[in-house]
Amino acid sequence: MKVILDCDPGHDDAIAIILAASSISPLEIIGITTVAGNVQVEKNTLNALKVCDIIGLDHVQVAQGATRPLVKEAEIAEEIHGETGLDGPLLPDEPSRQAIDQHAVDFIIEKLLDADEPITIVPTGPLTNIALALVKEPKIKQNIQEIVLMGGGTFGNWTPAAEFNIYVDAEAAKIVLESGIPVRMFGLDVTHQALATTETVDELRKMENPVSEFVSDLLTFFIQAYRDHFDFPGGPIHDACTIVHLIEPDIFNFEHVHVAIETKGEHTYGMTVVDHLGVTGKEPNTYLATGLDQVKFWSVFKKAIVSYGERSE
Amino acid sequence: MKVILDCDPGHDDAIAIILAASSISPLEIIGITTVAGNVQVEKNTLNALKVCDIIGLDHVQVAQGATRPLVKEAEIAEEIHGETGLDGPLLPDEPSRQAIDQHAVDFIIEKLLDADEPITIVPTGPLTNIALALVKEPKIKQNIQEIVLMGGGTFGNWTPAAEFNIYVDAEAAKIVLESGIPVRMFGLDVTHQALATTETVDELRKMENPVSEFVSDLLTFFIQAYRDHFDFPGGPIHDACTIVHLIEPDIFNFEHVHVAIETKGEHTYGMTVVDHLGVTGKEPNTYLATGLDQVKFWSVFKKAIVSYGERSE
Amino acid sequence: MKVILDCDPGHDDAIAIILAASSISPLEIIGITTVAGNVQVEKNTLNALKVCDIIGLDHVQVAQGATRPLVKEAEIAEEIHGETGLDGPLLPDEPSRQAIDQHAVDFIIEKLLDADEPITIVPTGPLTNIALALVKEPKIKQNIQEIVLMGGGTFGNWTPAAEFNIYVDAEAAKIVLESGIPVRMFGLDVTHQALATTETVDELRKMENPVSEFVSDLLTFFIQAYRDHFDFPGGPIHDACTIVHLIEPDIFNFEHVHVAIETKGEHTYGMTVVDHLGVTGKEPNTYLATGLDQVKFWSVFKKAIVSYGERSE
Amino acid sequence: MKVILDCDPGHDDAIAIILAASSISPLEIIGITTVAGNVQVEKNTLNALKVCDIIGLDHVQVAQGATRPLVKEAEIAEEIHGETGLDGPLLPDEPSRQAIDQHAVDFIIEKLLDADEPITIVPTGPLTNIALALVKEPKIKQNIQEIVLMGGGTFGNWTPAAEFNIYVDAEAAKIVLESGIPVRMFGLDVTHQALATTETVDELRKMENPVSEFVSDLLTFFIQAYRDHFDFPGGPIHDACTIVHLIEPDIFNFEHVHVAIETKGEHTYGMTVVDHLGVTGKEPNTYLATGLDQVKFWSVFKKAIVSYGERSE
Repeated sequence: MKVILDCDPGHDDAIAIILAASSISPLEIIGITTVAGNVQVEKNTLNALKVCDIIGLDHVQVAQGATRPLVKEAEIAEEIHGETGLDGPLLPDEPSRQAIDQHAVDFIIEKLLDADEPITIVPTGPLTNIALALVKEPKIKQNIQEIVLMGGGTFGNWTPAAEFNIYVDAEAAKIVLESGIPVRMFGLDVTHQALATTETVDELRKMENPVSEFVSDLLTFFIQAYRDHFDFPGGPIHDACTIVHLIEPDIFNFEHVHVAIETKGEHTYGMTVVDHLGVTGKEPNTYLATGLDQVKFWSVFKKAIVSYGERSE
Repeated sequence: MKVILDCDPGHDDAIAIILAASSISPLEIIGITTVAGNVQVEKNTLNALKVCDIIGLDHVQVAQGATRPLVKEAEIAEEIHGETGLDGPLLPDEPSRQAIDQHAVDFIIEKLLDADEPITIVPTGPLTNIALALVKEPKIKQNIQEIVLMGGGTFGNWTPAAEFNIYVDAEAAKIVLESGIPVRMFGLDVTHQALATTETVDELRKMENPVSEFVSDLLTFFIQAYRDHFDFPGGPIHDACTIVHLIEPDIFNFEHVHVAIETKGEHTYGMTVVDHLGVTGKEPNTYLATGLDQVKFWSVFKKAIVSYGERSE
Repeated sequence: MKVILDCDPGHDDAIAIILAASSISPLEIIGITTVAGNVQVEKNTLNALKVCDIIGLDHVQVAQGATRPLVKEAEIAEEIHGETGLDGPLLPDEPSRQAIDQHAVDFIIEKLLDADEPITIVPTGPLTNIALALVKEPKIKQNIQEIVLMGGGTFGNWTPAAEFNIYVDAEAAKIVLESGIPVRMFGLDVTHQALATTETVDELRKMENPVSEFVSDLLTFFIQAYRDHFDFPGGPIHDACTIVHLIEPDIFNFEHVHVAIETKGEHTYGMTVVDHLGVTGKEPNTYLATGLDQVKFWSVFKKAIVSYGERSE
Repeated sequence: MKVILDCDPGHDDAIAIILAASSISPLEIIGITTVAGNVQVEKNTLNALKVCDIIGLDHVQVAQGATRPLVKEAEIAEEIHGETGLDGPLLPDEPSRQAIDQHAVDFIIEKLLDADEPITIVPTGPLTNIALALVKEPKIKQNIQEIVLMGGGTFGNWTPAAEFNIYVDAEAAKIVLESGIPVRMFGLDVTHQALATTETVDELRKMENPVSEFVSDLLTFFIQAYRDHFDFPGGPIHDACTIVHLIEPDIFNFEHVHVAIETKGEHTYGMTVVDHLGVTGKEPNTYLATGLDQVKFWSVFKKAIVSYGERSE
C-alpha cells in the first residue's frame, strides 16, 4: 500500500514514521511532506530528515510544505514538543541531506497525478498541504485511496472543543472533509487511549537497538510534557495510531458518521462536529475511530520497534 | 429546601414534578412556572396543571411564562412528546384550575425578592424565563441558592453538538451561565444513563397506585418514542435527574468546570462547551454531572413513586 | 398621535423629548421609559426626570427599564455624553419626583394592552425594553402603530459597521426587526446630516427662554464632544430626527427595504444590513430614512424651541 | 510599470485588459492569470485568450489558475456575463493559442521571485490565486509593489453587504488584506460611478476600429444585463477602474483606511468592513477609492480605445 506521510514531527509524528518504515509494515512510503504545525515548518522538515537518518530511510524524498495555515494565523505547540519540535533525544545538528527542491503541495499533486494505483494520504499535522493540493489541482481526488488522518475527535485539547491539528487550520480541515474523499479519522477519543507510559519506555530500553533507544528518548520527554501540561499518566502517541491501523486493520473500531468542521464558532472554532445519532440527515463522510484493542495495539507497536534491531543484525 | 420548578412538561418534566412533590422529597415547591419548549407554552401549562391534579398538588401556584425563545425562532419536540406534549396517559380534557394571572417571569422575580432564604431554581426546559428574569431584575441573583438545570452535556441530541433545551434558546442559556449564579448541570452525559426501560414500567405497574399508573403510561409512550426516534433501549428521564439529586445528593458525580455557550457557530449553536482540561484558564462556573450510581438512582425513583401509594392509604 | 418615548438621555434624547413636548407637536406622550445605553439606566432615568422638570412635563410618567442588554455585556458612551449622561447644562441635583414603581417593560405592555388606538413607540436608545416587552407579551404587537427608532444606518460610529444603539443590544434589535411590526429607522445616513453647529447655538441663545438656554448648553457640550471624538463640524442630534419626522412627515425621504441585524459577525456585530438593491428577495420590513430637507428640518426644530418662550409668556 | 493581470473575463475584465494593453498605457503586462469567478475558470481562460487575439496581445502569457474558491463553494455570475462569461460580441470558437502549462499560482510566484523590480498585481476577480500564492510562497510579498484590485466597497451587489469578487472567496480576500502588502481597492463606491451608457457605445461605434467594435458589443450586452438585473441606467465597468488609475493616477480620490474582511457573519460574509472614522484604532492597510473625475475617466477610456485604430493604421 502506497502512502504519503504529511507531518509536522513532532514526537508522535516521528514514531509514526518509524512504524511506517519498519520491516513489519506493508507500507511503501512514496514521500514525506512537512507542514507548519507543532513547530515551524523549517524545524519540522529538519526533524523529518533527521528521523530518516536515524532509521536509514535515505531513499524516501522529503518535501517541505506550507509555512502557515490557510486563513488563520499560525499557532505552535512548543510547550508539548519543545523548542526544536523534537526535544528529548540527542540529535545531530544537521541531517545528512536536504529536502527536495519542490514544494510539498506540488510533490503531492505530482505523485498523485502520476500514480498508477491510488495512494493513501496520512496527514498527522494540520491539513494545510492537503487542502492546498485539493484547491490547486482538484483532479488528484480520484487517485487518493483514503485520507487516514490524526485530528479532531469528540472533544478538544487545544481549546475545550478543538484538537490541535484541526484547530491550527480549520479551514483546511473543512476543505478536506467536504472534498468527497474517504476520510478515516483518529481523534482524541482513541489517541488518548494510546498512552505510552514509563513502562513502555522500560520495555523499549530492553530492546537495545538504536531506534528503540531513540523512541525511548522521545517518549521520556513526551510523557513528561503531558504530565506537566495536562496531568496525564502517559504520553498519547496520537499520530502513531494512523500507522498502527494501516499495519493491522483490526485493532481499531470505527463508526461511519458525518463530520462537519466548525469555522465560525466563538468557542468552537476547529471542532470536528460528529453526528453520532444521525440527526443532521447528512451522509456519513468519515470513518471515526472510537475504540482500540490495547493488547494488539502495543503488540504491533513493539514488534515494529524491535524489528529495527533484527534488521540491523 | 425551597425550589421553583421551571419546566415544559413533557414526560420527564412531569416525572420531575412527581418526584419533587413526593413524600420522600425534602423540597418545598414555591411554584411551578412554564415555558415554551417541548411544545407550546399553553400546552405545557395545561400539562403542569393536570399533573398537579393527578398528584394532588393543589396548593402550588402555576404561572405561565415565555411563549417563545429570546432571539431565535421557536422549535418544538413533538416527535418525542406527542402533540399534547404529554401523549400516552389518558388525561382529563381540562385541569381543575387555571394558571395564576401573573407572568412566570414576574412570579419568579417576586418570589425571589420576597424570599427570606435563598431559593433553588430547577429549570428543566429552555432557560428563557430565567434569562428574562435575570435581565429584568438582576437583583434576584443574590437570592438564588443554585440553578439546578437539565440541559447540555458534552454532546447533542437535537443537533450533533447541542441538546434540545439549550439549543432552543442558547442566548438564554448564555445569560444564565454568565450570570455568576452557581449552576449545576445535568446534561446528556448522565441523563442518557438514566434510562427507564420496560422493566421499569413493569415494576411501576406492580405498585398499583394512581401515580405509578400515570408514570407507567408516561414511560410506555416515552420509551417507544426514544426507540423509534433514536433507537435507544429505553427512555432517558432527563429532567428527573435534577430532582433525584436534590432528594439524595450523593448519587451523581460532578466536575467543577467552565462551561461556555456557543451562540455563533455554524454547526454548534447551542452547544455547552465544557473545559474539562482547563485549557481556557477560565474560572469554573458549573458543576457538571458526569456519572451516576444506577442502584441508588432507581432506588430513589421507586421510593418516590411508591410513596404516593402509601400516602393515599 | 399617542407615543411612548423609550430613551437613554443623553443630549439628543433630551432634545427629542423637548421637541415632542413642545406646543407645535401633535404628539400625546403616554410615557417616557428609560434603558441602559448612553450611560447606566439609573442616570438616564434621573436625566429624563430632570428634563421633564425643566420643560414642565410633570404629568407624564417616567418608568425605568432594563439595566443591561439582553445577551451582551453593557457598553456605555461616556466619552460623548459625559459622566452624568447629560453633561454641560447646570442641572438640579435631584429631580422633583421619582420614576414610577413599575418596570418600563411592564409599563409598555400595560399601556399597549389597554390602548384603544394603536400607539407609536419611539426608541432612541438600545432596543432592550422593546425586545423584552415583545418576548414577554407578544400580543402587544397588534397595538403598535409603528416603531420609529433612531439607530443603525449603512455605516457605523461605534464600530466601522455598527451604530451605537444597535451595537449595544443587537439581539434586541433583531427581535424588533423580525417582529413584523412596521419599523421606521433614522440611522446615521440622515442623523449625521442633522448637524447642530455653533450657529445653531447662537440662534437658540437669542430666543432667551429657559428651554432654549438649556438646549444651548446641551448643544455646546455635545458639539465639542463630536469635534473632539470624531472631528465633526457639529453635533448630530440623532434622536431628535424621529420627533421632527413625527411633527412634520414630509421632511425626510425614505426607502422601503429589508433590514437584517447581524449578530454573528466578527467585524459586523450590530450592523443593520440594508438590502437596497433587493438582492435577498426578502420583503421590506423597514422604512429607512435616506435624506432630509435641511431648511424644513431646522425650521421645525427652531419653531419647537421658540414655542417654549411663547408658552411661558 | 510591470503588472500581472489576474482576472475572470468577464466584460469589464476584458475592457481592463484592452485598456492595459493600449498604446497609451505605461504598463508592461508580465502575464495574464485567470481564476474561477464570473464563470468557470476554463471559460475565463478561453475568454482571456480570445481577447488577446482580438487586440493582438500574442506575446503575453496566459496561465490558468484556481478552479474554485479556497474554502467556500463556487458561485458564478452567469446572469450578468452570460453563459460564456463574455456574451455579446461574436467571438471565434477557439483562440489561436492555449494557456501555458503552468498553474497561475506558480506563474505568479515564479515571476515575482525572478523580478528585478517590484511588480504590481491587478486582481479583477476573486482573490483565490493571489491568496494561494501568498500561502504557498510568502517570500513573494517583498516583490509586490502594490495590489490594485477591483472588489468590495461600503455596500454590496451580490448580497446587501458584499460585492461579488470578495463574496466568492472572502477567505482569500482576508489573506490578501492581512498580508501587509499595500492594497489599493476599487470598490462599488467608485465603480458604480464608472457607468458606460448607450451614449458611450455610440461614441465607440464612431471610432470604427475592430477593438472599439468589440468593446461596443461587450458594453451593449453588459448595459442591458445591468438594466435587467439591477435596474441601472448603464453598465459599471468595474474592473477597468484599476487600469484607468494605473494609466492616469490623478483621476480617483482615495482614503487611507483599515479594511477588514468579514468571514463569520450571518448576513455579512464577504463584506469589506471599512473603518472610515478610525474607531478600531487599527493601522490603515488599504487605499480605498472614494471618488472619480468623470471627465478625466472617460477621456482616458476613449483615448485608450481610439488608440487601437491609430495603431492599426
